[in-house]
Amino acid sequence: MGKVRFNVTMSLDGYVAGPSQSENDPLGAGGMDLHTWLFELEAWRKTHGEQGGEVNASTRVAEVLEGGYGAVVMGRNMFGPVRGPWGDEPWTGWWGENPPYHTPVFVLTHHQREPLKMDGGTTFHFVTDGIGPALDRARLVSDDQDVLIAGGASVIQQYLAAGLVEEFWISLVPLLLGDGERLLDNLGSSIRLDQIEAVEAPGVTHLKFVVR
Amino acid sequence: MGKVRFNVTMSLDGYVAGPSQSENDPLGAGGMDLHTWLFELEAWRKTHGEQGGEVNASTRVAEVLEGGYGAVVMGRNMFGPVRGPWGDEPWTGWWGENPPYHTPVFVLTHHQREPLKMDGGTTFHFVTDGIGPALDRARLVSDDQDVLIAGGASVIQQYLAAGLVEEFWISLVPLLLGDGERLLDNLGSSIRLDQIEAVEAPGVTHLKFVVR
Repeated sequence: MGKVRFNVTMSLDGYVAGPSQSENDPLGAGGMDLHTWLFELEAWRKTHGEQGGEVNASTRVAEVLEGGYGAVVMGRNMFGPVRGPWGDEPWTGWWGENPPYHTPVFVLTHHQREPLKMDGGTTFHFVTDGIGPALDRARLVSDDQDVLIAGGASVIQQYLAAGLVEEFWISLVPLLLGDGERLLDNLGSSIRLDQIEAVEAPGVTHLKFVVR
Repeated sequence: MGKVRFNVTMSLDGYVAGPSQSENDPLGAGGMDLHTWLFELEAWRKTHGEQGGEVNASTRVAEVLEGGYGAVVMGRNMFGPVRGPWGDEPWTGWWGENPPYHTPVFVLTHHQREPLKMDGGTTFHFVTDGIGPALDRARLVSDDQDVLIAGGASVIQQYLAAGLVEEFWISLVPLLLGDGERLLDNLGSSIRLDQIEAVEAPGVTHLKFVVR
């Protein structure tokens, strides 16, 4: 059986996105800088149609993080900046015609919508009955691979608080954002973690945890 | 010349002490658990009069952190729980007759007090004119070794915000405290850091940063 997991890049002061997120700045002020370690990798550039790039200790981690899942769950804010009903010319995601997921993706929303089939094997399913049913549906189609909770922070928090996450990676970068979306907020002190692995890489340390 | 540095153990959600700190619970609820990695080390137990303990990847880091400084600066809340004027039978620190510093220690306070000489080379000096003068005095007597900013969180924040810290270690533990004293608050996004080293150890990852 696959695991329910997430992975996220976090600033040293705990943020996974900067302040003032918008359609033009989906990660908020300073938020793109979080992912410099990833954008520089050859492994990432290749899957996004670009040449060249670095091979370093992050490469293996990026390959682990970007593979091994058979379904994805994400919040509506991660799917797009649109709020309220979907309207007549609805948003189809940030990622163009061929999103990088290549699996079913379950989008948490309060507004019903027909499934949206994209190129490359990604189909967005819109789930209106909450995080539990969304995960159940993801598990059903994940073919015994992992279910990836893609984000954002509030969706990850909801799954953590519900005890539904089994393991996660935090890629910690030496950056202070000062404001924005904090990952590990609103969780109290009851979640018990074991540190499984730490991988030092240029400009980032990747930390793997298992929830007890 | 020595460096101005600090080292601190931080929970994954960013706290260096739990909520509800008191004389009986100086690290607040859950705060002692932050330091389990340290208390288990033979290197730490030996310097605190105890036998046995672990030797692991944290040992080298603990030796680096606990050596190499010639003077210490700390906040009054780290020195003790007493507030206001010192009174007639004043507090002499948490550490008994022989504190673990063995150097001059400059305590930031609003209330004047004569220097307090302890066993083992530690003398507490009480500084009423602010963080800059306290650091100047510490540098003067540090004999070209490092000046250690011992804490707590608000004092570290003040030195970071003033651009006076040159390097620091964060020992990150897989613990959520949910509340308490956050280390990297009130600092905005202007501080630039380089990650120098990451050391994976049982139950903790030690991260070294340099301030640009």
